[in-house]
Amino acid sequence: MKNKAKFIVVEGLEGAGKSTAINYIYDLLLELGITNVQHTREPGGTLISEEIRRLFKKEFEGENLTAISEVLLIFSARSQLIESVIRPCLNEGIWILADRHNLSTIAYQGGGRNIPIQEIKSIQRMVCKNLEPDLTIFLDVSPEIGLSRARLRSKLDRIEKEDIKFFNKVRSTYRNEINELNHDVILIDSNKELDIVKQEIKQKLFQWFKNTKG
Amino acid sequence: MKNKAKFIVVEGLEGAGKSTAINYIYDLLLELGITNVQHTREPGGTLISEEIRRLFKKEFEGENLTAISEVLLIFSARSQLIESVIRPCLNEGIWILADRHNLSTIAYQGGGRNIPIQEIKSIQRMVCKNLEPDLTIFLDVSPEIGLSRARLRSKLDRIEKEDIKFFNKVRSTYRNEINELNHDVILIDSNKELDIVKQEIKQKLFQWFKNTKG
Repeated sequence: MKNKAKFIVVEGLEGAGKSTAINYIYDLLLELGITNVQHTREPGGTLISEEIRRLFKKEFEGENLTAISEVLLIFSARSQLIESVIRPCLNEGIWILADRHNLSTIAYQGGGRNIPIQEIKSIQRMVCKNLEPDLTIFLDVSPEIGLSRARLRSKLDRIEKEDIKFFNKVRSTYRNEINELNHDVILIDSNKELDIVKQEIKQKLFQWFKNTKG
Repeated sequence: MKNKAKFIVVEGLEGAGKSTAINYIYDLLLELGITNVQHTREPGGTLISEEIRRLFKKEFEGENLTAISEVLLIFSARSQLIESVIRPCLNEGIWILADRHNLSTIAYQGGGRNIPIQEIKSIQRMVCKNLEPDLTIFLDVSPEIGLSRARLRSKLDRIEKEDIKFFNKVRSTYRNEINELNHDVILIDSNKELDIVKQEIKQKLFQWFKNTKG
């Protein structure tokens, strides 16, 4: 079906340039004639998910979120987003342009926090059922470059304060797991200058669009 | 080991008399010479778990918690309670007297909300690992009697507002699953008058205590 709405996910470390890329991809989709696009971010995007996001980002005196609790909160927010936003939009022909989805959980909580990836994937199946993105765009950046960009931007949150070892594990899990996805993938070298990154996104996105239109 | 701290869980429907029973069991434990007892309730019991409890009980305009999201929030709160309260207490020789634990999730979200019980048990294994109660006291009440008591008590919350069909499914799941537990169980007919219920609790708890002291 030519006009089926697509589910595009943008993934990457802090400072990989996800927000800039998402705005740019939005413009590129317009250029391609796709005018119905809903932007999402995770965790978040519904009344309940945003409350979970707040809980997730907050620091509590004398109590840390356990690693498994972090996973469960993320998937709880994801379930709300899927049922209240993602599925209804796709059913109505509205494209989804997502800032993070399942791959983030595998990279951060699996790679970063050492939760077995098979456990994460089993919860993922309970929550997402048959929902699968059509395309993941992975902005690959070294933790050193990414974190230095993130530090310039704003006060670091609970996750961003993790050490470089954590982000090295997240990145290597991203790079391993991107090859395990059951859908299309675009890899972008996000260490480069913004203009070059944008050029690469444009060229690869247009190529993907051409291919999927068949 | 004679003096190992025990983990006792009290379970039952709304209006089964859990709060009254827990106060009474606390007194009975004192009578038995057990003076270090920590009371817990679920979801709740830590800074983070109480925030999750609030989210869990709240009603949101135009958005319902999905059934799987409900399960994930409960286990997220449970993970915090286990790691911040239950395990540290048991390690220090403090008994745990718990208002609800895993069996509630199986009864309410499994039986009541139709989440496959095997999925709930697989999340349970990720969260609880080797932690298992020593004793579950199940206060069995018919939904009709339980709900009429709960209505007298206070304004009904999001769960208590479910219909009788929901509570019938919860009760029958309780009654099936109580037999599947890998630890000691005391069954109490909680439809009876309070004095009779108390007598039954006392007699069975003292018997259990005598047996476990072996």
